[in-house]
Amino acid sequence: MNRESLISFIRDQQNFLCVGLDSDMSRIPKHLLDFPDPVLEFNKHIIDATKDHCVAYKPNIAFYESRGAAGWESLAATLDYIPDTHFTIADAKRGDIGNTSRQYAKTFFETLDFDAITVAPYMGIDSVSPFLEYDDKWVILLALTSNKGSQDFQHLTDTSGVALYEQVMRKSQEWGTPDNLMYVVGATHPEAFQHIREIAEDHFLLVPGVGAQGGTVQDVCDHGLNNDVGLLINSSRGIIFASDEEDYAEKASDAADQLHQQMSTILQAHFSKR
Amino acid sequence: MNRESLISFIRDQQNFLCVGLDSDMSRIPKHLLDFPDPVLEFNKHIIDATKDHCVAYKPNIAFYESRGAAGWESLAATLDYIPDTHFTIADAKRGDIGNTSRQYAKTFFETLDFDAITVAPYMGIDSVSPFLEYDDKWVILLALTSNKGSQDFQHLTDTSGVALYEQVMRKSQEWGTPDNLMYVVGATHPEAFQHIREIAEDHFLLVPGVGAQGGTVQDVCDHGLNNDVGLLINSSRGIIFASDEEDYAEKASDAADQLHQQMSTILQAHFSKR
Repeated sequence: MNRESLISFIRDQQNFLCVGLDSDMSRIPKHLLDFPDPVLEFNKHIIDATKDHCVAYKPNIAFYESRGAAGWESLAATLDYIPDTHFTIADAKRGDIGNTSRQYAKTFFETLDFDAITVAPYMGIDSVSPFLEYDDKWVILLALTSNKGSQDFQHLTDTSGVALYEQVMRKSQEWGTPDNLMYVVGATHPEAFQHIREIAEDHFLLVPGVGAQGGTVQDVCDHGLNNDVGLLINSSRGIIFASDEEDYAEKASDAADQLHQQMSTILQAHFSKR
Repeated sequence: MNRESLISFIRDQQNFLCVGLDSDMSRIPKHLLDFPDPVLEFNKHIIDATKDHCVAYKPNIAFYESRGAAGWESLAATLDYIPDTHFTIADAKRGDIGNTSRQYAKTFFETLDFDAITVAPYMGIDSVSPFLEYDDKWVILLALTSNKGSQDFQHLTDTSGVALYEQVMRKSQEWGTPDNLMYVVGATHPEAFQHIREIAEDHFLLVPGVGAQGGTVQDVCDHGLNNDVGLLINSSRGIIFASDEEDYAEKASDAADQLHQQMSTILQAHFSKR
């Protein structure tokens, strides 16, 4: 999906919610375990229940891969089930030397037809650029992540006062453009969004960390929104595990609807001010 | 496999060669394409031909994953086929927030029974520590990689003159020990090994980048060897694709044997000096 289509879908829906499909077999409702593919069954009901309240889905590959080949079958079938209108992100955090990243790109952009993949920046240009060679496909590069461990290296500052996450954002703009490169910035760092918008005014930001991890939509939006909205805010566990009973799909719909309404209100206020 | 068993196997074999199973479907000899699982057939012959000349195998997960569920079947069957004597490394470069890294650890240490996995450090402690919770399993953390892109971020230096890759090595020693933590250091940086041995005297180093990428075994050993050998030097394409004809297994054996002999000679000289 290209930038124009993504922005147009977000504007039509007045919504920039991404639903994270961290579909952990050990946490899905017990009555689903009798189905031949319980995770696929779970995902289908979650997608049906949330598709009018989100613009993107982000399967977390770890939760599929941990089931081996069967998990990859669930992942492929889940991706097929997501409506074509919606933006799809493989949350895979891949990145390796050039010939290997090329294989990972083939996995997620050809074998599977995701729109985007999350990529780890540590290995630099040749680990990232193979993913940028596809038309209408996206790299979502880790910049400032939502977790506790983001403090370990991402804030390390060089002699000119520039933190590693800023270096990653500046350097990678030599490799990709706002048309094929987004950044992961955690909602747990709301104070950073103003500075991040100075570094990457036009890029979309994928923002995990609302809900279970403690960030809020309003805090992210205060400085994170740009002229094209420019945000995809993800919620995983807060939506898909809103209930662990038979009403899980209904409760997921409610949770997504609540975020959708909040986002619509914020967008209305943001664009009416301008 | 624990440290003691690994060292003892290396000393018995007078060898510290790791064979990288980057078994790219598009590069394996054409006559194998008629087999039900061409990659598995290829790997079995490569393993038979090289097992007396190496101590470890390192499947590169990208080359399996790119074939979806079928690739995961090949990977699992390949791992089963590797003799129990040999150390096994999932070259996966994973790393994500805690609950997700826990799933990746489950994948590679439970669903599949690898001895070790390569992990990317960018997301810090909670992305690495779930892999360290398993007895006799290893994290091999990216420090200074062999590729061109290693120049982009790994050499960035903080106000006290410490490069990012050194920070990664120092900080991670608060999380793991020489019994469960190794580092990836590319053979393309032979000048760095002396300094790296000052930072991590006892840790094993997994060294890619000899052969196709240009590094040499002798250069790595000059400063990389420690009292327990402390090195696993990997060669992938230089061994498994030594020939693309029907003699590929024989040629792989020759290439591995040559490295084996070189390593034996180096070890003899190294330990006789002491």
